[in-house]
Parts: sequence; structure tokens; C-alpha cells
Amino acid sequence: MSLAPSKPLSGFLDVLPADAQAFEDATNALRRVFRSYGYVPIDTPCIYRYETLTGGEAGIDKQLFEWHKKESREGQGAETGTHVALRFDLTVPFARYVAANRAALTMPFRRYDIGKVWRGERPQKGRYREFVQCDYDVVGTSSALSDLETILIMHDALAAVGADAFVIKINERQILNGLLAEQDLTGQTSSVLRILDKLDKIGNDGVRAELVAQNVGDAAATALLDFATTTGPSDDVIAKLTERFASNHLASAGIERLAFVVRSAARLRSRERFTVDLSIARGLGYYTGVVFESALLNAPEFGSVGSGGRYDNLASQYINEALPGVGGSVGLSRLLAARAGTQHRVPPRTVLVAVAPGVSLYDGLAVADALRAANLDVELYPQETGDAEAKLKKQFKLADARGVARVILVAPDELVRKCVVIKDMAAGTQEEIAIDALATWAQGLPSVQ
Amino acid sequence: MSLAPSKPLSGFLDVLPADAQAFEDATNALRRVFRSYGYVPIDTPCIYRYETLTGGEAGIDKQLFEWHKKESREGQGAETGTHVALRFDLTVPFARYVAANRAALTMPFRRYDIGKVWRGERPQKGRYREFVQCDYDVVGTSSALSDLETILIMHDALAAVGADAFVIKINERQILNGLLAEQDLTGQTSSVLRILDKLDKIGNDGVRAELVAQNVGDAAATALLDFATTTGPSDDVIAKLTERFASNHLASAGIERLAFVVRSAARLRSRERFTVDLSIARGLGYYTGVVFESALLNAPEFGSVGSGGRYDNLASQYINEALPGVGGSVGLSRLLAARAGTQHRVPPRTVLVAVAPGVSLYDGLAVADALRAANLDVELYPQETGDAEAKLKKQFKLADARGVARVILVAPDELVRKCVVIKDMAAGTQEEIAIDALATWAQGLPSVQ
Repeated sequence: MSLAPSKPLSGFLDVLPADAQAFEDATNALRRVFRSYGYVPIDTPCIYRYETLTGGEAGIDKQLFEWHKKESREGQGAETGTHVALRFDLTVPFARYVAANRAALTMPFRRYDIGKVWRGERPQKGRYREFVQCDYDVVGTSSALSDLETILIMHDALAAVGADAFVIKINERQILNGLLAEQDLTGQTSSVLRILDKLDKIGNDGVRAELVAQNVGDAAATALLDFATTTGPSDDVIAKLTERFASNHLASAGIERLAFVVRSAARLRSRERFTVDLSIARGLGYYTGVVFESALLNAPEFGSVGSGGRYDNLASQYINEALPGVGGSVGLSRLLAARAGTQHRVPPRTVLVAVAPGVSLYDGLAVADALRAANLDVELYPQETGDAEAKLKKQFKLADARGVARVILVAPDELVRKCVVIKDMAAGTQEEIAIDALATWAQGLPSVQ
Repeated sequence: MSLAPSKPLSGFLDVLPADAQAFEDATNALRRVFRSYGYVPIDTPCIYRYETLTGGEAGIDKQLFEWHKKESREGQGAETGTHVALRFDLTVPFARYVAANRAALTMPFRRYDIGKVWRGERPQKGRYREFVQCDYDVVGTSSALSDLETILIMHDALAAVGADAFVIKINERQILNGLLAEQDLTGQTSSVLRILDKLDKIGNDGVRAELVAQNVGDAAATALLDFATTTGPSDDVIAKLTERFASNHLASAGIERLAFVVRSAARLRSRERFTVDLSIARGLGYYTGVVFESALLNAPEFGSVGSGGRYDNLASQYINEALPGVGGSVGLSRLLAARAGTQHRVPPRTVLVAVAPGVSLYDGLAVADALRAANLDVELYPQETGDAEAKLKKQFKLADARGVARVILVAPDELVRKCVVIKDMAAGTQEEIAIDALATWAQGLPSVQ
């Protein structure tokens, strides 16, 4: 019989144990952070009606994994032939979840969701067609406190997954909106944003030329460029903006909120982690208030590792109720990729139990079980029943392959004295210890990597 | 604009926060158990080539969510039109994972995988088209120690998710195989198994009639019925089997292993949790050694809540290497459904911070942040900026809706004294406490539900 293909499809990934372990540890750390702010988990389906996912938005379907459910089958009844698709993010499923379960949810509703999404993009290095998103949002509130908490959560999340040098860059969309209103450009918001976004690439003159080509007057272009190129320490930028927009109510409200968020976050955590950055625009149309992105100072090439912002209305496509909210998304894959250079280390609380010839299967396992009860992670070498002569060499070779720091050796002579031998693999040293004393010994091992 | 449909497809489930929280807590507990036995997580894709998933097995495709990838699109290149399908279990993805990554894996390889799978079954109460499986396996070993560890893991897993009265029913397929060989019925193994499986429904006479109809001789039918109806305390059953099959090498090997597993498990945990049950057959053809199922004593109607067994060859469809192994699958959805009657309780370490009029947004959040640093999960009521008169009544109503046991009230007079008020929601009592003393107070709260 010929073998079936075992390799994943292009753009899909088999995650090997060390990476899966790092990923799981990181998601656990994120869940702890989210929960500490009163956020609760939800779970939403991966497959939806096509029109549920697209919700009328054009262009969105280009990346969808979509199909028509097949010909009639027993039990599939009325839904046969339904046009369905896999979710491409966690925001659309969240919006429809809130609409579909509105009566069961108490506002403000804080949720996080860590789950897979699918996009038919061209596979590239580090970019897959199936990947995990980690989102958190609070809806049903316009409070500045929620903006601040959202930023603090991103800070704590990045710290929790081991990012040691990062900055969260924050802006407030109302400031630009106020400026656009002042210059009578409100109707051109998205085209102006698109041009301002090119500042890094085409420079001041390039941006000015494109603005003028879009019928933006010269004075308005100057005002926009003055705004977009305002940089410096956060307090200086806020002072400049406050003076510049003193008589612009919309912009002033944005400045006040931006100042509250950045200054409070700096005071509660640390000043160098938060900065005002007027170039942050985030998702052209969607966000309406505070917006933010995060960068690793030692690995800026990974781009934003966590972003988000405030929106006026989460679920307008699904429900006739305005649900303002604010949320963020942690770029976990990028964070872990940025950290990939660092050596994977086996936690110190993981040990391997080796069993010498002459010890019964039961006695070896009983020692492993006692170590497990002492909160160690214990791999027992699985001796074959008839294999009384199983070479210790083989077991120590496995310990090397696993990379554990310590092997617990169960051998006949020591067992008579109710003792085992602890071997330190790096130092090559060993010591005899009473089985009864293993729990106390285990307590002394460090609890983290 | 008309609203897009927000309800999930039939057979798909929106998981509400309380259930999602219980599910997440349970999977965390399972991961801890798996890791404590040296099992490591992996992650495998959800979408595969159709022939990868079916691997030549007929009949399997009836439940598949499958489709042909759509017409040519930019970037999808050579794979356009590929016949693909969603995984329907975690075993097939595991088998092909081992084959595809064989060089990177050190045997024995222990892995667990908790993930979603999809089946186009008819939706029923408690049965969904998208659901989560929790599997653990060790491959590359035939050791009885691995059989025993697999059973212990199931025990510890059931205990970890709060099952308080359960029994793990264990059998060994080699015993029946030995009996079938003795009666020259090896060629009819699957039809005999199918008939014996009806014992509960059609009784001894019915089974005998069907066996005879399948050309099983009268003496052989008696031998099969004698075997299948052997019940009693585990030690008695093992004694009877040992005597009965003294000269049958195949059966004796199975009996020896069964005795080792059941007796060792009883000694290491507790006798009443493990029993020999010769009626357990599990997955007709696939399993070759130890097999087991688990039942809740107080909710037997939920069927098996955890099962598994030993197999000779995990990945024969994908690789020319025999990989014997043993594994189990925890029926987490059933376990949680069985427990659904019990009241969901908010953990004692979850509090709500209410802020009285006259306190600045920052001061309220600073108290919440200090409680969070003391390892509490803290929900802060998100006051609106202009809402200085936000009614405390509204905040306490939210605390009631959330079901928290304690509210921390930040109010102007107490804040001057650097104090807050802790209100016990059930007792209705309150006490003033210094903000500096909150961390110590928080330490005294119970750490589990």
C-alpha cells in the first residue's frame, strides 16, 4: 500500500513541542493578565454563514476560506448548500456574539478570546494561512478608564510574555478629526489619512504634493504637516497640542484623554514604556478615539507586537444598539518569533527517572509518582517488561536528549535503604537521598525557568 | 441597512463566559496533569489535503467538512482546486505529524493536544459539529509502564476537573485474542466482537443464536459466553482468568499485563477507582492491548468520560516504521455537562472596585491596580469622564450582577485617610482598611473556589 501524504498544506504549520510549550506558557500568562482586569473568556465558532462574516463589507472576502456545503446528506437537512466560511479574525465573531447573546451579557462586557483564524494569503516566512489571535475588548462603555486599562493590559501582557524592552505608542483620533473639521476636510478623512501614512516613505514634500493633488489647499496642507511632524517627549507634544487646539473642542477632548491615558500609565508603570506618537493611525476608518501600537526596542523589524484602539460601535452590522468599546490584540506569534533566538531551556522542575536493572517496574513508577506528588514534572523511562537488562546508558542518553538538569536514579542497593540517587547532569555530581526526603528536596528547586 | 445574521449555524455553539471560564480552568488543570507525566504540547493544522485525512480508509469521509479550494486567485498558485477537509479528530493529525516530523522527535514521544475538530453529524442536544478533543499519547514504546501511566493520567485528569466519584474500567485485548485463537476464530474477530458487544441488549441466548448463525460452533460459543460473562471483584476475575488460560500464552500475557496495571493503579491511587471489565472492547479493530473506559458513578447516563488504549502501530498509513503506543482521550464536554447542575461560583479572589463621586478617575484606578498587584482579579467600574455623579447604586448593582463576594469602595473621606472600605456583599457588613494594608488583606483570601 502506498503511503498517504503526511506534510501540511503550504501555509500551514506543524508546531514542534518546544515551540508549542512556549506558546502555551505565553497564552497562560496572557490569560492571567486578562483575568486580573476582570476580563472573561468566551468561545465562538470557527465556521459561519458567508453573509455573517462579510456583513455587507466589500473586499473582505478576498482572503476567506469559503465553500458551499455539499450535496444533500442525511441529517444536514435545510442547511445543505449553505455558503459558509472560516473566520478570518476574532473581531467579527465577537461583534456577532454580542448581538446574538445580548440578553445574557451585562454591560460593560469585558472579554478575551485566544483562537485560530484563517486567511488565504500568500504564504511567506513567518506568515501563515492558519494562525492564532489573542484579542481583548470591553464594550458598553466610553470611559477614559477603559482606554487606560486597555493600555495597561497591553503593557502587562507584553511584560508577562517576557518582552523586556518595548514602547507603546499612543495617539487619539479625535485630535486629527478636530483638525480636519477646522480645515473643512472631514469629507476627505480617509484619503488624507492614507497620504499622511506615507510620511516616512515620501517625506514632507511628497506628502504636500499628494495632498494638493487631492484638492487640499496649501494652508490646510501646511496645518496637516505641522500636526503630523510634531514629535518630542510626550509632555512637550501634549503642551504644544493643547496650545495649538485651545479653541477646537473636538481636538481638545482628544488631547485631554490622550494626556490622561499617557500620564496615568507612566505613573502606574514606568515612563519610558509609553509615548505620544501622532503618526499612529490604526485601521483608517474603524477606530474613533485612543489608538496604540507597540514596538520591541531591540527588534523593531518585527513591527507592532500589540495594537488596538477605541471604536464607537462594535456591532452595527448585527444589532440596532450602539456599543462603544475599546480593545487590543497581542501579536503573540511575532513576540515569540522575536524571542526565538534565545535558548529553549527545560524548566528546573522537570526531571527524568531512570531505573536500574533489578528494580521492579512498580518500584520505579512509585518513585516517579512520589516526585509528581511533590509538584515536579516527571518523565519515567518506559522499560519493556522483559527488558530487565535495559541499559542505564540508554536512559541517560534520553535524559541528554530531553535536556533535563537532573536524573533520579532508582537502583537496587539504594532501594533497600529506601533511598535513590540524584544526578546533576551539568555538574556530573550525584548524591544519595532518602525517598521520604524527596518532597522536601523538590520544594527547594526553583519554581520558574 | 438590513442587519446581517448573527446566530451561529445549526450545530455550532457560542460559549457564554461562565461556561468558557469553566472550560478554560479545566483545560489548564488537564495540561498540568499531562505535563506532570512528561507529556508535551504540540499543535497541528486544522485543514488538510483530503487524502491525508482519509488515508485510504473507506467510510470515514461521511462526516468530513470538505471542499475544493476555489478558482485561481493571486498567490494561491499551484494549490488552487485542491480537495481539502477539516480534521475530524486529533489522532489522524497526530499520526501524520509524527510521520512528517519523525527526525525531530525523540522516542518515546509523549504529546498532548487540546483542540477543535469538526464533524458533519446531525446536531443533537449536547452533540455539536464543532467541538474540542483532549488527547494524550505516548508512542515508540510497548512498555507496561506506559499502559499504567496512561491509566493513572486518566485518573488524575478526572480528579483534576472535579469528578469525585468515577471508575475506570479496564480490559486487555490479547486475552480475547488468545481465546479466539484457541477456538480457531481469529479470522472472525470483528464479527464476534460485534456480537459480544450486544450482550447487554440481547442477553446470553440472543448472543449464542447470533454466534451460531455466524458458524461459531456450540462449544466455542459457550467458551466465548463464559469469558464475556466473567464478572466480580478484579482480583477474583484475574484469578479465574489465570487458571482458565494457564496454557494459553497469548491470553496469559494479556492477563499478566492487566493484573499489573489494575493492581499497581489501585495501590498508587485507590482501589475503588479501577476495575477489570471484560466487556470493554473499544474501537473494534484499532486497539491491540490494554483498553479502558471511564464512568461517573453519579451520572452514568453521560457514558464514558475518558477512554483509550494501546495500539501496535500509530502511523502505518504515513510512514514505514512501526510505532506502538498507548493513549487516552478525556471527555471534557461530557464531564462539564455532568457538572452543569452545580452552581457557578465567582472565585473569592475576584473583587469589584466601586468609586464614589468626588474621587478622581486616577485615584480609583490606582487602588484597583494595587489590588491587582496583590494577585486579585479586579473589575473597575468604568466611570464616564463627565460623570462625576455616577451613582454608587449602579456600581453595586453591577457587583450583584457579577456575583462578586466583595466590593472595594473608594470614597473621598476615606481616601484622605489613605483608606478604602471593604464591603462583604453576602453579609452586608463593611470595614475600613488602609490602602497600604490591602496586599496583606488580599493574601488572607482563599486561593481557590
